[in-house]
Parts: sequence; structure tokens; C-alpha cells
Amino acid sequence: MIIRLQPELSEAQITHIAKSTAELGYKATEVRTQYNHFLVAPGKKEIDLRRIGTLPGVADVYFVSDDYQLVSRQWRVQPTVIDLGGGAVIEKGGFSLMAGPCSIENEDQVRAILGHLQAQGIRMMRGGVFKPRSSPYAFRGLGIPGLEMWRKLCDEYGIKIVTEVMQVSQIAEMLPYVDVFQVGARNTQNFNLLDELGKVDKPVMLKRGISGTIDELLYSAEYIFSGGNEKVILCERGIRTYEHAYRNCLDVNAIALLKEKTHLPVIADPSHGIGIRDFVEPVGLAALLAGADGLIYEIHPVPEKAASDGQQTLNFAQSATFARKASALAAVKQAWV
Amino acid sequence: MIIRLQPELSEAQITHIAKSTAELGYKATEVRTQYNHFLVAPGKKEIDLRRIGTLPGVADVYFVSDDYQLVSRQWRVQPTVIDLGGGAVIEKGGFSLMAGPCSIENEDQVRAILGHLQAQGIRMMRGGVFKPRSSPYAFRGLGIPGLEMWRKLCDEYGIKIVTEVMQVSQIAEMLPYVDVFQVGARNTQNFNLLDELGKVDKPVMLKRGISGTIDELLYSAEYIFSGGNEKVILCERGIRTYEHAYRNCLDVNAIALLKEKTHLPVIADPSHGIGIRDFVEPVGLAALLAGADGLIYEIHPVPEKAASDGQQTLNFAQSATFARKASALAAVKQAWV
Amino acid sequence: MIIRLQPELSEAQITHIAKSTAELGYKATEVRTQYNHFLVAPGKKEIDLRRIGTLPGVADVYFVSDDYQLVSRQWRVQPTVIDLGGGAVIEKGGFSLMAGPCSIENEDQVRAILGHLQAQGIRMMRGGVFKPRSSPYAFRGLGIPGLEMWRKLCDEYGIKIVTEVMQVSQIAEMLPYVDVFQVGARNTQNFNLLDELGKVDKPVMLKRGISGTIDELLYSAEYIFSGGNEKVILCERGIRTYEHAYRNCLDVNAIALLKEKTHLPVIADPSHGIGIRDFVEPVGLAALLAGADGLIYEIHPVPEKAASDGQQTLNFAQSATFARKASALAAVKQAWV
Amino acid sequence: MIIRLQPELSEAQITHIAKSTAELGYKATEVRTQYNHFLVAPGKKEIDLRRIGTLPGVADVYFVSDDYQLVSRQWRVQPTVIDLGGGAVIEKGGFSLMAGPCSIENEDQVRAILGHLQAQGIRMMRGGVFKPRSSPYAFRGLGIPGLEMWRKLCDEYGIKIVTEVMQVSQIAEMLPYVDVFQVGARNTQNFNLLDELGKVDKPVMLKRGISGTIDELLYSAEYIFSGGNEKVILCERGIRTYEHAYRNCLDVNAIALLKEKTHLPVIADPSHGIGIRDFVEPVGLAALLAGADGLIYEIHPVPEKAASDGQQTLNFAQSATFARKASALAAVKQAWV
Repeated sequence: MIIRLQPELSEAQITHIAKSTAELGYKATEVRTQYNHFLVAPGKKEIDLRRIGTLPGVADVYFVSDDYQLVSRQWRVQPTVIDLGGGAVIEKGGFSLMAGPCSIENEDQVRAILGHLQAQGIRMMRGGVFKPRSSPYAFRGLGIPGLEMWRKLCDEYGIKIVTEVMQVSQIAEMLPYVDVFQVGARNTQNFNLLDELGKVDKPVMLKRGISGTIDELLYSAEYIFSGGNEKVILCERGIRTYEHAYRNCLDVNAIALLKEKTHLPVIADPSHGIGIRDFVEPVGLAALLAGADGLIYEIHPVPEKAASDGQQTLNFAQSATFARKASALAAVKQAWV
Repeated sequence: MIIRLQPELSEAQITHIAKSTAELGYKATEVRTQYNHFLVAPGKKEIDLRRIGTLPGVADVYFVSDDYQLVSRQWRVQPTVIDLGGGAVIEKGGFSLMAGPCSIENEDQVRAILGHLQAQGIRMMRGGVFKPRSSPYAFRGLGIPGLEMWRKLCDEYGIKIVTEVMQVSQIAEMLPYVDVFQVGARNTQNFNLLDELGKVDKPVMLKRGISGTIDELLYSAEYIFSGGNEKVILCERGIRTYEHAYRNCLDVNAIALLKEKTHLPVIADPSHGIGIRDFVEPVGLAALLAGADGLIYEIHPVPEKAASDGQQTLNFAQSATFARKASALAAVKQAWV
Repeated sequence: MIIRLQPELSEAQITHIAKSTAELGYKATEVRTQYNHFLVAPGKKEIDLRRIGTLPGVADVYFVSDDYQLVSRQWRVQPTVIDLGGGAVIEKGGFSLMAGPCSIENEDQVRAILGHLQAQGIRMMRGGVFKPRSSPYAFRGLGIPGLEMWRKLCDEYGIKIVTEVMQVSQIAEMLPYVDVFQVGARNTQNFNLLDELGKVDKPVMLKRGISGTIDELLYSAEYIFSGGNEKVILCERGIRTYEHAYRNCLDVNAIALLKEKTHLPVIADPSHGIGIRDFVEPVGLAALLAGADGLIYEIHPVPEKAASDGQQTLNFAQSATFARKASALAAVKQAWV
Repeated sequence: MIIRLQPELSEAQITHIAKSTAELGYKATEVRTQYNHFLVAPGKKEIDLRRIGTLPGVADVYFVSDDYQLVSRQWRVQPTVIDLGGGAVIEKGGFSLMAGPCSIENEDQVRAILGHLQAQGIRMMRGGVFKPRSSPYAFRGLGIPGLEMWRKLCDEYGIKIVTEVMQVSQIAEMLPYVDVFQVGARNTQNFNLLDELGKVDKPVMLKRGISGTIDELLYSAEYIFSGGNEKVILCERGIRTYEHAYRNCLDVNAIALLKEKTHLPVIADPSHGIGIRDFVEPVGLAALLAGADGLIYEIHPVPEKAASDGQQTLNFAQSATFARKASALAAVKQAWV
């Protein structure tokens, strides 16, 4: 059950509503986001919603049978729109591209990529300055100095930054430079990180876990939302299966289901999905048709020389073709609605 | 190594060529198909191909580093075309639809479906008369009498039959009635069945195993081809993963890879893939963009009353929309080539 | 619901009982095994069993809520004992070893192995004469002539034969030579093969599918049992997961569950399980503690020269140690009961 | 390559050695642990080790072909022993039990469990005060106040504490109360957390990821070790597969392999493994035979009333039987060495 509260309620009024839900067998948790004030009380027991809806201070009340609540489309049918300004919008029926290198390496690399993005009309650049690496001896990214440089250049080009945050202590130092915080597949269930990102007023793009279920992804999104941040984007990036002919199995089935279950936008990552350069295009286009609201993919001026993940990275010519085809399909999709 | 032989060689000439390959460390197997006569000698050892190519009786010779040989695109770059006549063609860049019920039930059901297919311009009907069922107590299909009835009706409408064969002894009795033999996911590695289907001059549509690898699928196709039948179609129908929010995980990544590895056409089955009616369309369209040359899906006049698999079966209105969108996308794809 | 019938009922009596179950909403299938005559009527609807139990001709009646019926321990609590004669018994609380090569190769190999088995007190020899191979160009076994030779030698030593049958047409030709028919992991859901093995009065050892569920294994066992053959043995041989550091993941969890769910004996195959010689012993012993009633494993006089699967095959010294430790543990287990 | 340095080298001496390894094409990372001072330089290129071994300041040098280095048994053959004092030792060939509730709930619960542990001679108690929960609305543990209470009681009984740390900021506040830090399956690749635990002089028990590979587990252990902490324990807790008849698939194969690949002790967690009370015993005993050096499992005075995970929790009678059988088997194993 989601109870949306009217603005500026007193503590006493809130307590009264919470007590009433408790009497119906529902334990309420108070949630205050950028835009709303809620009491959230998960449960499946049938009750007469009017008993809550008519209480003073209640704006409206919804019954949500899913275990996750605020991210459920049972409650909010209207798709969530994430507007970064400057024309960078992530929304259902729109179509967003995010492209960039695995790792931010240096000014030349960033400039070359920004030039390419601008030419394609792509308004968001992805890239890593903190890199989660299996081995402690591998390159772990340029850190904050790299992020500062990147921000400066992006501002020149009017392009937005999507980048991974790995731990709580990085949030504050990254905040001034970042447009979208990305949570990687190894941190999908790093609940403390999710809690803290709930306190931030910047969009968070949450990747599905390496072998995460759809429900786990939605629960983790609920952590961020119930922590106070309504600006959540989901990302399907491929799951781990028995098949090792490709890196991960980009799961178009999950995309189709997610669009039914949640009002949040869903982005697909074919680079980490199939993980092989030549197949990023067909798999990315497939994801789009399955329902993805946008694509994130890796590009590099010279993929063979990339500091990491070169084998799954497109060059600029491939990226231009991919972006053109994706746009054409997005237009076809839009005409169907 | 694939050695294509000239027509009408004598036993002595063939033996001579086989001996020459043996001297190079390659063990040759003789393969005679509807169209060709080969010696196939798998191996990765580098040799001077001219030593074979110049032997009398050799039409041409190719080095294939894959473990499978005759189904490899390393050898035959030209895509295989399966022409069933009457305009029913399965080929790359073309676009084929196969639709029908899980089980053939009765004449009324078949007629209703044939009418729908004809109206949509769909030229192949799928359906089961021998049903593999987990439980021995479940409905196992109408058998040969059902197939005879179905054939008669299809002939009226000029529509082709795609249906599953489960065991060697059924091949001969089904042969007169069937246009495409389907091998189900539980029989992908039923090697005796594959051997026997190699001896038949009818197309075989081979489904990927329930958790079959891409390589295993290609090896199994090699069984049929090397058994003598070049008319092989592959079918991606979803794999078993840890995720149970849907029936199977239709694997678009595999489709993209298969189109690179083999000259055989690839069909996708979104009904058995995601297994939920409302998502057959987005997942089917995704498969198409990933590279599928056609789609097979389940329809029924009244899905809720289907003898089996109703929850993943489209009604006629859904099917019409799906077919229309799929055709539109096929046209977009074709324009890109 | 399982209705055990009294011997020598008339058709009319059986029809009467079936009709009575139908009136209660249960569809009955007649099953006649080597030992019993049943009506089996799966379903979960609660009924008063006395309405069936008091009918003339009914020996006893049981309610089984599992979807599989005759293999369920809900019905038959007493564990099934498979006695091959000559001291070769497979039963709960007993402890059976089956060992031998992947492929039967020649008389010398068989003799050497029989000598070893005799010295260890092992009474069953495994080996393949029909080999399922992914590639059509690989060695497929010696066939019936190899089986005849093997049988002759086994009779000399008083040792029993466990070997794989791959298709229906092989059953009759193998029957005179075989003590236990093995169904391989690729044929677990080859329902026609299971049907036919139900008509044979020899034990069948049914392997779990490559990624088969526990329920699917029990359903497939139900095919054999309801086909008429009560002598079914289950075999856990490792499942396919994302982890590729070993061949298959021998699943001790499944063994523990199977012993709870069914009265059939369960054998474990650590050779095909982990698939690496050095780890066959620890994993095999683990399976035993998890509840396995016996072990099947691969041995060869010179594993490095085995025609197939050498990397997972023990030599005689390793086998002797393994058998000794397994026996010691079986004794510890027995003392606990 | 692992270069162990002599004590009290000057910066200049270290730089000289690092430069020499660089000349051989190896990039060295300095590692300082509680006990040792290393240069670690991963790589597979063959070199003459004497060129490093004879440098002044080098104690010894080893070539390690694994990608992980310090946790590899290629280097340190002698098994690592973790001695917590008071008789609580985790080591190969020894045998350690850790038992306790999923969540620490209150003083009565803790006292009851400590009494049981003392009676069984179990010297380590597990329990959670920070609980990772999929849903943000679930109970998340008592936190530091609960830990303080628990510590006080454990000191009374002379029993050690094993408990989960979820984030960097908790390490300092937990440090005074904890004997073994546990890293949960959702944090196996939380590299920042691993880095920080490398700086602590307390043992860390690292669980395998939910679908983590064996290599990923060893890499993550390398993070802790190379961060400075040699006291690492590994824990197999079951992996996620397609099979949903149990909670997780406790992977005895991984245990057997880990004992070959690393000198670190390996503990198995059958409670989170199979996740069903009745099967904790057989699966736990199986793990022991596969090579586990100890077991961690969940107990509760009244499992049905546990705040979390009750369905996989043993009562005291079950725990006593389990501990007795495990000890008996440990003795059998020891006699074999």
C-alpha cells in the first residue's frame, strides 16, 4: 500500500495515519523524496482502502500487490521521465543514447569522443574514472582528477556525464561533476550504497546484477526510491549463463517484462551484454525492439588501444551506423504507439 | 577440411583421395548429400591445400578450422536457401513466418487457423501431432490420423506443414505428410534421430537444446548434413537460466552469433522463448533485429481453450498485429543491406 | 492417487473402479508392471479415499500430492531394492560400486578391468558400446559385437554389465547381454525410449538431464515405471552451470532431496560430475555422505590412452584407494542409522 | 612472480628490485602484510628467477603462473592457519564449526545459543547485526548495540564472534567486538570493502559470490591479502543455478578445487547452501568429505520463531547430532592423511 501524503503535515497527523494502517495489519515506513511524501506499507492482505483514503492528510492511496512498491507500475502508470537538461532526456517512447569509453584515459581521448557524440547528436557520454576490476593489480581508473578534466570538456560541448560510483565515500566528491550516477552490476545489492544514493538529487542508473533476478533489480531500485530519490533508471546489461560463446547474455526478455512491471525507464547495454564488437549492433537493436528506452555502449577512437574492454568497443564509423539505425527503429516504434 | 568431389567418381578414385588426406594426418569421412559428394576431414593442422586440390576427382577443397565443418560459414559463404514451393521460402534477407497451435486438435481448429494464416499471407503452419510431455499422464497428441487430416486441409489452402518428429520410427510414417520436420529441444542431441533425418530429402528445423550451447547446436546440425541432408534450419527457442520470471530466456545473442558462424537459416521461437503471451511480440521483434530469418509462434482461435501451452499463445488479432510489425521491420532491415 | 488392484480382476471390474474415480474428478490410467497392477490418477483434489478403497477389487489406495505418482515416497515408503543376482544389489543403506571405462575398447582392456574389479570386490562393470558424441566424426563405440565379447568375459568373472542404450531399436538387440540399461543425460527426456524401457524386465539407470530439474528426472522415471518396469535407478551426474572450472557441477543437494522424494535408489557419477581425475575421489565421497546409495566411476588400465574421457578416468591404484575409502564411509553411515 | 623481501629494506633497495623486475617485463606492486613484505608482479613470461633471487634484499622469489598470486598454492604450499586463540583454530586437517542464528535478536537468544555451543565444544558463534536484505522494508539487524551485548556474553563463555560487515564505515566501529569479519555473497566483489579489510589485523571470511566463479573468489581474496591482511578464510555457500527445488546449490566441486588452488582454509555453509533444514546435515557432511576445513551453519533455540531464515535453521537437538557426525567424519578423514 502506498499512501501519498498532503504537503506540510504535522508529526501528529503522520503518526495518526501510521497508527491507522497498523490497525489494519500494515507496518508503514515514512518516505520523503524530492517530490513527494509517502507512507509505504507493503503487504497483500485485502483491506478497504477507503478507511485510509478518507483520513485527514492523505492525498491518495493505492494498493500494490508487488513486494516492491514505489517502483511498481501498479501504482504509477505514467512512465517516469528523467530530464538532464540541454535536451538530454530519458523517457518511454523517447530514445536515448549514451556512448563513451570504458575508461576515461586522457584529454585527447575525451575530446575525440565528444566530437563524435556531437556529430551524431548524442547528448550523454559514459565513461569510468573508478573501475571495478577483478584483479587488484589491474588499472583502476583516473579517479577524481580525471573526472574534473572530463567535466570541463563536457561542459564545452554541452554533453552530460554518466559514470560509475563504487562506494559511499565517493558520492560527495563526485557529486559536483556527475549528471547520472551509475551503479555497476557488482554493486546492485550493495544496499548501503543504494541507501546513500537515495539521499542525492541526481539520477541513478542501476544495473542488473551479474546473475540478478528481475525482482532483485526492482527491490534495489526500491532502496533508492524509498531512500528519497525518485530519479532511477534501470539498465539490463546481460546475465551470466552456462553459455560462454559470448561475454554475457543480454536478456531482452527481462527488458520486455520490466517495461510491464515498473514505471522507470530501462536502458540496455549491448557492449557488456554480448561483449563482442561485431555483435553490439544487432543485439542493441534487438534490445530496442524489446522495449528499451535507450542504449548505452562503448566507443573509443582506437578500440584496439583502449585501456580496458577494447574487444567490445565500437570505433566511430561503427558507432555512427549504429546510432543511425537505432534512430530509424526508434522512429518506427514511435509510429506504432 | 572439406573436399568436394566431382560427380561419378569411381571407388578407387575416392580411396586414392582419402589415402592422400590420411598421409597429411587427416581422417576423411565420405558424405553424400542430395546435391553433393564430399570427403570431410576435421582438423586444425596446417597443410598445403594444393596437395589435395590438384588430385584427380577433386572439385574443390576448403580448410575449415571450426570443429563442425559442413555447416560452417568458413566454407560456404552463400546463405542456404530452403524453398518449400508455393512461395514458402526460408532464406537470409527474406523473412518467414510459421504460426499455428501447440497441438493439432480437430478440423475446426485447423480450418480457423488456416483461414487466419491465409489472410495474413503466412505460408507455413506449425503444430504438434506427437507431443513430448514431461508427465506420462499428459495429452500426447493426435498422432498420424491427426496429421493426415491436417495435410488434407493444408493442401486446400496451399499452406506448408512444420511439425515435430520425436523418434526414428515416426520418420517414415510422417514423411508423406510433412514439409518440414522439426526436432524439439529435448532431442537436439538425440544423435540416432539426427542420423536418420540425414537420410531424408525434406528440410529439418533443429531446435537448440534446453541448455544447449551454440557449438552443440552446430554439431547436431552437422549430424544431419553429414548424414546426407543439406536442408537444415536452426531454431533459437530460449535457454534455461536461473531467472524464473519467464519460461525460457530467448537468446538474441546466440542468433547474432549463429548468423556469423553458419550459412544455415535461423528461426526464432518467441512463444517457447519468453513463454508469456503479452511478451511474444516485443521479444519476437527483438529476435528479428538480432538477425533471425524468420519467426515461429503459437496461435489459437481461443488461446484460453488450447489443449496445451495456452498461456504463450496469441489470438488472431494479436497475431495479425505481430505479423504486420514483423513485416515492417523486415522491410527496414532489407533496406539496410 | 494410486489404486493397487487385486490380482486377476476382470475388465469389467477395472472399468467399474476407473468409472468411480472419474466420478470423483480423477482420470485413471491403467499400469501393469512386473509385480503389480495399478490405476494411477494424478490430481490434488481432496476426496474421501474410502470411497475408492472399499470398492471390490481394490487392494489398497493412496493419495499422492506430487505430480509424479508411482516413484513418489509419499506412496511407497519402503526403499526399492534392485537385485541383479550374484551379490550385486543396489539398495538404500547398502552400498554399490560400478566402475569401468568410458568405452569398451578390446578384450585386453576388459580383462584387465575385470581383474581389478574382482580384486576390489566390485560386482558391476560400466562401459559404453554405443557412445553419444557431440561430433558426428568422433568414435561411436564398438556396438553389439563389442557387447557380446564383453558379456562373455563378464560371465567368466561373475560381474554384471551396466551400459547405455541410445535408441528404441537397440533395446531388443542389447537385451540378452545387459544387466542394467543406462539412459544417458541427453536422453533423459527421450520419452519414446523411456516408454519402451518400461516394457522390459531389466533395471534401468536413468541419468539426470544435462540441465534437468529434479522434478523432470522424477517424471522421466515415472515414464519407465508407469510403462511397466518397477526397476528404476536414478543417477546424479552433475549439472551445467555458469562455472567452467570443472566439467559439470555434481549436485549433492539433489541427491539429498531425491532420497526424500522417491523410494528409488540414487547413484552418483563423480567422473562425469566434476570431470577431473584428481577430484573424483573427494566429490564421490561427498556424494556418498549426501545420501547416494552407490557410485559409478570411470577407470582404465592406462587412462591417458583411453579412447574417450581419459582426463576424468582413474587408474587402478586410484580406484583401489577410492573404493576402500568409500567402503569405510559406507560403514560409518550404516552405523548411524 | 612473488618476491619476498628481507626485513627493514631501504626505499632505495626496494626501488632497485622493482626496477630490475621492470627490466624483465614485470610490473611490481609493493605489498606489506602483518607478517611479510613483498613485491608482487603477475605475469606469465618465462624468466630466469635467479636474476631476481640474487639481488640484495630479496629473501626468496617464486614464479606463480596463476593470475592471482599471494593466495595461490603454487607459492605457499603450507596451508594457512587462522588461530583466534582460546582453542578456536581454522586450519587444514583440523576441523572447525561455527554456529549461530541468522540474526542476533536479544540477550536470551544469545545466551541459549552460547550454552548450546559450549555443550558441543563449538568455539565460534556466527550471527548477524547488519543484515543485507533484498527489500528495504525488511528487518536490518540490531547494529552496534546488539554487537556490544553479544560480545559481552561471548566473553563470558569464551566463544569467538563471526559476523558480517557490509560497508567500509562499519569496519572501525565493529573492530573492537569482532573476531572474524565475514564478507557476504553480495559483497564478494565490493572491491573498496576488500581493500579496507586488507588494512585490518583480524581474519576475514570471504563468501563466494551468488554466482561467482572460483577464480573471482580467489581474485577477491587476493585483494584482501595484497591489501595487507594474510588472514583470509574462504567460504562456499552455494551458487545460483536453474534448479529452484532448493535455495542454492552448495558446490562441493568448488571446495575440492579450492583446496588444490589455494593455501587458504575453506569453510562450507550448508544452511545458505541448500537452504532447507532437513538437508543441512547431509549436505554439510558432504562438504566436509569434499575437503572443507570447517562448517558454518544456522541454529536457533526455536527456529520457527527466528527473525530471519528460520526454514534453514537447525534446532539444538539437530545441531548436536550434526556436530557429532561431523566430528566423527573429521576423525575418519584425519586417519587417511
